[in-house]
Amino acid sequence: MEFDTIAAISTPMGEGAIAIVRLSGDEAIEIADQIFSGAGKKKLAEVPSHTIHYGTIVDPKSGELVEEVMVSVMKAPKTFTREDVVEINCHGGIVSVNRVLELVLTVGARLAEPGEFTKRAFLNGRIDLSQAEAVMDLIRAKTDRAMNVALGQMEGRLSQLISKLRQEILEVVAHVEVNIDYPEYDDVEEMTHRLLLEKATYIRDKLQGVLQTSQQGKILREGLSTVIIGRPNVGKSSLLNSLVQENKAIVTDIPGTTRDVIEEYVNIRGVPLRLVDTAGIRETEDIVERMGVERSRQVLKKADLILLVINSADDFTEEDRQLFKAVEGMDVIVIANKTDLPPKIDWGEVRSLAEDYPFVTTSLLEDEGIDTLEQAIAEMFFQGHVEAGDMTYVSNSRHIALLNQALQAIEDVLMGIDIGTPIDIIQIDLTRTWDLLGEIIGDTVEESLLNQLFSQFCLGK
Amino acid sequence: MEFDTIAAISTPMGEGAIAIVRLSGDEAIEIADQIFSGAGKKKLAEVPSHTIHYGTIVDPKSGELVEEVMVSVMKAPKTFTREDVVEINCHGGIVSVNRVLELVLTVGARLAEPGEFTKRAFLNGRIDLSQAEAVMDLIRAKTDRAMNVALGQMEGRLSQLISKLRQEILEVVAHVEVNIDYPEYDDVEEMTHRLLLEKATYIRDKLQGVLQTSQQGKILREGLSTVIIGRPNVGKSSLLNSLVQENKAIVTDIPGTTRDVIEEYVNIRGVPLRLVDTAGIRETEDIVERMGVERSRQVLKKADLILLVINSADDFTEEDRQLFKAVEGMDVIVIANKTDLPPKIDWGEVRSLAEDYPFVTTSLLEDEGIDTLEQAIAEMFFQGHVEAGDMTYVSNSRHIALLNQALQAIEDVLMGIDIGTPIDIIQIDLTRTWDLLGEIIGDTVEESLLNQLFSQFCLGK
Repeated sequence: MEFDTIAAISTPMGEGAIAIVRLSGDEAIEIADQIFSGAGKKKLAEVPSHTIHYGTIVDPKSGELVEEVMVSVMKAPKTFTREDVVEINCHGGIVSVNRVLELVLTVGARLAEPGEFTKRAFLNGRIDLSQAEAVMDLIRAKTDRAMNVALGQMEGRLSQLISKLRQEILEVVAHVEVNIDYPEYDDVEEMTHRLLLEKATYIRDKLQGVLQTSQQGKILREGLSTVIIGRPNVGKSSLLNSLVQENKAIVTDIPGTTRDVIEEYVNIRGVPLRLVDTAGIRETEDIVERMGVERSRQVLKKADLILLVINSADDFTEEDRQLFKAVEGMDVIVIANKTDLPPKIDWGEVRSLAEDYPFVTTSLLEDEGIDTLEQAIAEMFFQGHVEAGDMTYVSNSRHIALLNQALQAIEDVLMGIDIGTPIDIIQIDLTRTWDLLGEIIGDTVEESLLNQLFSQFCLGK
Repeated sequence: MEFDTIAAISTPMGEGAIAIVRLSGDEAIEIADQIFSGAGKKKLAEVPSHTIHYGTIVDPKSGELVEEVMVSVMKAPKTFTREDVVEINCHGGIVSVNRVLELVLTVGARLAEPGEFTKRAFLNGRIDLSQAEAVMDLIRAKTDRAMNVALGQMEGRLSQLISKLRQEILEVVAHVEVNIDYPEYDDVEEMTHRLLLEKATYIRDKLQGVLQTSQQGKILREGLSTVIIGRPNVGKSSLLNSLVQENKAIVTDIPGTTRDVIEEYVNIRGVPLRLVDTAGIRETEDIVERMGVERSRQVLKKADLILLVINSADDFTEEDRQLFKAVEGMDVIVIANKTDLPPKIDWGEVRSLAEDYPFVTTSLLEDEGIDTLEQAIAEMFFQGHVEAGDMTYVSNSRHIALLNQALQAIEDVLMGIDIGTPIDIIQIDLTRTWDLLGEIIGDTVEESLLNQLFSQFCLGK
């Protein structure tokens, strides 16, 4: 395939020791040569692949010195994109790296779209789609476990599983077609049905097995969207602070433009908790008060986990009862706080209302009970045993949706066999299963979907 | 010199396409080899210098895969630090790059202190102190002009000037000593005086010349600390917004821990304006109201530039008069806003009070007058002609202080000549000038000062 040459800043924005402007494409080296002045006066076009060169970036028009740099030259095909790649390592100043990027664009490169380097790696066949998606998951991973899931996927673990299943389906399809085309024996129909039943059952079981990891995989990838609720002054913001302080691995997203929308991630025994609306809690101590009842309900519905805090040193009130009602049927952990004070609450009523939920007592003031709470969270979602290294997690919503559709298609095959549907009709569902699985690894996928997927990447990747 | 091997993350913190863990020291390559598994199974110790290698980072204890990386090997002495340097380019995830750093530290590297890589470049003699300081200035530069000043200094422009002056002083000292030691002629004393007078005058003129650029250099480096004041509702926050919106090159410092203290930089024709307390202005529209009168006065005193806004469509009030009084003797630009409304202000009184200051009328509502204001700012500090490329700017407060002390010392020399002080006494001041200039380039400098200087660097540099 042939593409134009793209360029972008590939390091995070901000002051740092090193910033990189990356180029990829047929003219990457030629473009770099126009602005690079090497210490040895050698042109980059003449240097061997995978070598590093010291020199300066000079504006070819004005002759003005722009930066002192190290330039890495990597020639196709052994590169990230399978194209010629040049990386210009600058001193990490925001102004200087932008000047270098501007120059590169002036002399012929095009500004890369988000994810365009990885997209080329996919389009040029170095990695499949699920591996490309894993690259972004790896960057966004909030905990070690999440990272391991992404790494496994990037290394092709999911790809191999999917490819193997598709291979099996293909063989069945071929076999069935041969049987149909050459009906030399009487029992062809019976044999074909038996083969189909056996293989389709096998594939269904495999798909179910993979999907069983999907809830955990998705949590590891996206974090548990968590909401803390409770009456005013029961200790919601203390709980928030305890969770944030005790767990060092906090990762904060700071989107480019808006500084208001900040999400905080807390690493609870490898489970990334995404604390929703923490700013709101900190400011007003009350999500309901701040957002109004209706919006609060919507936030609750979207949450993966609700931490309902009650005050053990106070009466159990009508408001508490309503909160219990509001979270019915959701994943809730009930936290009775302030055990440092004499108990006043009606434990009987609390226990009967909290019967179906994990129940934890805490004294946030005296720093007690947080451990138990963390254990409860880990058990709720991972039954206490997560070792991401052991299994092929499916973590990506797109993959999960496709796997579910593929599962449905193979169920249709089994149903067809059961009710004696003609083989050529059944085969349509079988082929559909094959197609759906192909979409995961990008074998059968629409251009528009590709564009949408890669646009979610960060710039420079 | 011999040092242990240090390591740090050298890219800015955050999600990005590439993150780099950098190692420097005798064991850098050996340490990298312990966790790197190259595609070709070759050890990094065996590869040529300045080459790049694809492979994976594997935990040597658990055998667990940690990252997919590109490793750059650069062997001493042609490196940033003049030591062996290894750069591990990871996918830019926060979790993964931290895992790689942890591993590197586990197998034998020490976490680098801020600025320690650059400090080694200095201690190993690759750059002098003023060049090392320029590295950090380059990273922190807020505008192109500021960047050019830093770049010039990094390339050794200031160093050369200082070295040349010191060479001249050394020659004079030598000459004088010869004259004293071999007084073969009667007129030795007179000749020595004449030579001293001529040379000392030359050096004083040079020092004065350099110092003349220092105010501008300092502004380019540090930004103009700017405060906007005025009565409530005269348009202070509109002015702030206009300045921020019209000028794209905004750079925001986000210190690691506190998100409250945010400074905004606005690029006004190459002059970086550091807007002080913008959050305060945005919130209350009134710096005095928010901070109290006393603290406001202190803020005003520290400011390099005060933008005093008055309302042309309202009476000129006692409060306005007090503001004019409060800023007496400071660098002020007076802005009469709301010219879209019928004028009501007593122009006579305003003009007489604003007589000594640049005066600009604006209608921020209709987006008029901002250009004139920007021109006034540029003229106030740069007399309209800044071309950073042309001259050797001194921008660093430490350098400026040393140059001023050196100037004082050479003035003492001239004074001594004038009043007929004995030559050997004069020579003490001459040597002191030489020492002071040496401190700028780090030739004569204390260990504690070095530590303090480099501790202001960012991590990984």
